[in-house]
Amino acid sequence: MKAKVYVTIKQNVLDPQGNAVQGALHTLGFNEVGKVRIGKYLEIDLDTNDRAQAEEKLKTMCEKLLANTVVEDYRFELEG
Amino acid sequence: MKAKVYVTIKQNVLDPQGNAVQGALHTLGFNEVGKVRIGKYLEIDLDTNDRAQAEEKLKTMCEKLLANTVVEDYRFELEG
Repeated sequence: MKAKVYVTIKQNVLDPQGNAVQGALHTLGFNEVGKVRIGKYLEIDLDTNDRAQAEEKLKTMCEKLLANTVVEDYRFELEG
Repeated sequence: MKAKVYVTIKQNVLDPQGNAVQGALHTLGFNEVGKVRIGKYLEIDLDTNDRAQAEEKLKTMCEKLLANTVVEDYRFELEG
């Protein structure tokens, strides 16, 4: 089973990396670019066929390690 | 119009960050975790309603700045 995990900075938290990329895109002439937010995207192979258990485990992984839930949100999708 | 951009490390390129996260998840007791690959996820607001033009611009942004196409792949989705 394969999981796709998205970790994003919460809406009301500053994203300096996103602001830097926005500035760089403007410098390159992409003036139609508005807000840019940057997060992480993880692909995780899971050696299990139990979907409910996989979801439970993934939630714990995100809370414990993958996301800093003070400033970040996470969501995930399971495939296969 | 809103774009979601995914930048991932190419399959045959080593991902030390992913390996580190895999090791950490094993240490935390998640032994069902196999390969972990880590990429970037960007949300970009675009001030345009021309979908074809937006796709063209995004492609150029990815090639020029957002992805290092030597070692990274990218893909994007347009919404709205």
